[in-house]
Amino acid sequence: MGFTSMCLLPLLFLLPVFATSRLHPPPILFPSATIQSLTQKSKSANHTKVPFTTHFFPQQLDHFTFKPQASRVFYQKYLMHATHWDKGPTHTAPIFVYTGNEGNIEWFAENTGFMFDIAPKFRALLVFIEHRFYGESKPFGKDSYKSAETLGYLTSTQALADFAILIRSLKQNLSAEASPVVVFGGSYGGMLAAWFRLKYPHVAIGALAASAPILQFDDIVPWSSFYDAVSRDFEVESTNCFQVIKESWDDLMAVADKKGGMSQLTKTFRACKKVKSVYSVRNWLSAAFVYTAMVDYPIQASFMMPLPAYPVKEMCRIIDGFPSGVDRLTKVFSAASLYYNYSGANSCFEIEGNSDPHGLNGWDWQACTEMVMPMTISNGSMFTEFTFDYKEFEEDCKFQYGVLPRPHWITTEYGGNKIELVLKRYGSNIIFSNGMRDPWSRGGVLKNISSSIIALVTQLGAHHLDFRSATKDDPKWLTEQREAEIKILQGWIDQYYKDSSELSKT
Amino acid sequence: MGFTSMCLLPLLFLLPVFATSRLHPPPILFPSATIQSLTQKSKSANHTKVPFTTHFFPQQLDHFTFKPQASRVFYQKYLMHATHWDKGPTHTAPIFVYTGNEGNIEWFAENTGFMFDIAPKFRALLVFIEHRFYGESKPFGKDSYKSAETLGYLTSTQALADFAILIRSLKQNLSAEASPVVVFGGSYGGMLAAWFRLKYPHVAIGALAASAPILQFDDIVPWSSFYDAVSRDFEVESTNCFQVIKESWDDLMAVADKKGGMSQLTKTFRACKKVKSVYSVRNWLSAAFVYTAMVDYPIQASFMMPLPAYPVKEMCRIIDGFPSGVDRLTKVFSAASLYYNYSGANSCFEIEGNSDPHGLNGWDWQACTEMVMPMTISNGSMFTEFTFDYKEFEEDCKFQYGVLPRPHWITTEYGGNKIELVLKRYGSNIIFSNGMRDPWSRGGVLKNISSSIIALVTQLGAHHLDFRSATKDDPKWLTEQREAEIKILQGWIDQYYKDSSELSKT
Repeated sequence: MGFTSMCLLPLLFLLPVFATSRLHPPPILFPSATIQSLTQKSKSANHTKVPFTTHFFPQQLDHFTFKPQASRVFYQKYLMHATHWDKGPTHTAPIFVYTGNEGNIEWFAENTGFMFDIAPKFRALLVFIEHRFYGESKPFGKDSYKSAETLGYLTSTQALADFAILIRSLKQNLSAEASPVVVFGGSYGGMLAAWFRLKYPHVAIGALAASAPILQFDDIVPWSSFYDAVSRDFEVESTNCFQVIKESWDDLMAVADKKGGMSQLTKTFRACKKVKSVYSVRNWLSAAFVYTAMVDYPIQASFMMPLPAYPVKEMCRIIDGFPSGVDRLTKVFSAASLYYNYSGANSCFEIEGNSDPHGLNGWDWQACTEMVMPMTISNGSMFTEFTFDYKEFEEDCKFQYGVLPRPHWITTEYGGNKIELVLKRYGSNIIFSNGMRDPWSRGGVLKNISSSIIALVTQLGAHHLDFRSATKDDPKWLTEQREAEIKILQGWIDQYYKDSSELSKT
Repeated sequence: MGFTSMCLLPLLFLLPVFATSRLHPPPILFPSATIQSLTQKSKSANHTKVPFTTHFFPQQLDHFTFKPQASRVFYQKYLMHATHWDKGPTHTAPIFVYTGNEGNIEWFAENTGFMFDIAPKFRALLVFIEHRFYGESKPFGKDSYKSAETLGYLTSTQALADFAILIRSLKQNLSAEASPVVVFGGSYGGMLAAWFRLKYPHVAIGALAASAPILQFDDIVPWSSFYDAVSRDFEVESTNCFQVIKESWDDLMAVADKKGGMSQLTKTFRACKKVKSVYSVRNWLSAAFVYTAMVDYPIQASFMMPLPAYPVKEMCRIIDGFPSGVDRLTKVFSAASLYYNYSGANSCFEIEGNSDPHGLNGWDWQACTEMVMPMTISNGSMFTEFTFDYKEFEEDCKFQYGVLPRPHWITTEYGGNKIELVLKRYGSNIIFSNGMRDPWSRGGVLKNISSSIIALVTQLGAHHLDFRSATKDDPKWLTEQREAEIKILQGWIDQYYKDSSELSKT
């Protein structure tokens, strides 16, 4: 299969697409339909409505060259929530900045209730900065995704510099030079938050990086760890559930190979339109399992899709609940329906989507340039085995975007190899929080590195669960995790004020 | 006068050009003739001949975008001295890397005898990497300085990324993954070394930054400190000397204003060609004083020009030695001759140079883009008072190169403001060495920041004196300074091996 299956995994919008190398179908990019539905949902769904003001900052296109085009200006969106900030005109209370990731900034603000929950206690200003090339922060407007000439400016280094410049300007304009800044981010945003603290310690005194797989590069962690982790989530719920899913792929292929098989699959999977490729079905199913593992929250939530508490357990309950004799495809379809149709509103499914044939979106570009996260699927997993072929990946990226990936750039620019050794006596004030139900946790920092570069790991947590608003249903361990985070944040801020006042005396 | 007078100060090749804002002559760029003469000298002069091998690394043009042109390759020069490295094939002994600054890399290698002196003790590999756009490392060959389209890639951030990529590749190719890397640099190279440790702690375990004025930006240090420091060097030698120089500028102007004044100046200053502008003479004189203060070494040396030990004292001895009644211009000319003609080979002086009218060279570009170091001249100095006009500076840069400076970029990207507060609990393993005779020391880090971010200050040291080869004439304090540096370096390396072995056990 194409490289894209394993590599173009948006952290949040992850859609694994499976096929066999042998068949090598055209690369399947992340269907924009899914993004659209997420976006629509985020606008309409019943999220906590949070009051923020919207602003635009004149940002420079290229921070690292002085070519004439570099100083072209675009407008970068950011949101502010100043309800609880200390009274001015000169501020000293902290500023909590969310370093936006691959999507509309409102969506991240709405799904990071934790920051709103703690703002009063810290009397903090909240700022959510949109990542360049996403949402409304498109440097070339509608032409932003046109080609490598424009997309070329979509890199993590440029994004970090955007944050630094915007924060510095904001502090100056708000007379908040004395306010300590802490950066927050989840998923790719968490990677950015951690890297920001490492690269811009003079701008942020600390970082809370939730579910940030900064080690998912090169060969720092085993390439099979992601899909193994998804599989483990299902297996610990029920061996039968794991086994049914694992065996269902062969069934799927067998049906597809039969005469009239595609019609049968169209029916079994209640596709709105006749399914053309069996791989679409495989992708559709796999996506449901992977995403559900990521958001296997202990509470009802609606981050990617509305789901009940412990959705992996629920999926397995569905599979295990069928009488013996029912075929496996029916079982896995029912399980996947939990993900796609928990609300019950869908009478059929857009299995092949209606995505833009050019399929361009920002994360695909990032995955084909900097964010090369090699992934394989081991035969101990519940998915179809898959090996990563870098050459093929490279060729597909070249074909798709006309540029070559730089597979070792991220670790050259930000490190990652031997991170315990490098950061044992370097840097400070980073929390890496991870929930082990989230497959991305395997690429995260799971052990304390020093007294102030801390790993907070919850066995039952999932993809930046700690960033969600507190609810009355939260388990004790989750409340305790958030309390630990608050205590550490408070420690950084107190230390900063203390150091600041001591140094001003000398 | 134009901005360029105060701002285009190459750290090593500093040539201050003075005029009055009122008169506003065209900006005088650093005459390339001087660079040529330095280059020639470095090739011919009697430097310690050091054995190194020359190599070229295929380097990428732009590390921070993925525009199609970004992956264009140029060949970056680097030198290696492996005489004392541990026997391979797998290496563990350290690698000492000089992060090249604005000139031919051979020149820096030949003037950094300290690294050669200590290589045997550490069994270290020495690597000297040329900075992009200098020497033979020109990304567009002869067209490299053509316009902002090509020069745009000459930035410090690109240079640091070049170093990171080259070092990583080198370690891999040499089977030296286990070798700790320490970066060394003097002047702008020292700034790069310190910034490299801050930005790439995963590549270098420490940095020795000699005479690195990383605080000479924004308003971190008083803008007048540089010229005040030069003046102080002369004043402490002799109040009369200081006074003669201070009063000579009015004399110079008075002569120039007289009929036949320029002929008289041509004669007094033994110019090879008739002098056209009094400001050329002023620049020529000022350069002699400023450069001599920078290299006011306690030993005979030939870094910029051949000079005796304690050359400022010698200059003042010349001025003070004249019988009363001799005019001040004769005195200051004689003093300046020490700098320009210690060898006695010149019968006349190229006071107006014969520089390329386009006057483009790399440092001018850097000073007009990132390296904006505002400088003024106070009336307590021995120079003509001068105030910095940012608008004028900006306009001149725009006129000269077609780009606008980013005056706050360096402090946004690398910090500098409140550095004691920022680095008190962040980072480690940096030595900032400074000699207080060097006016650039005023922009350096002069106090310890933490237990491993250390300032080594010598009252009688000058511009990266510690980087010169040890000689039998070295004063005790200089030997002690170098010993302190060696001890600290040894501590970093020992710690690294210890941490490394402990972590490999867990």
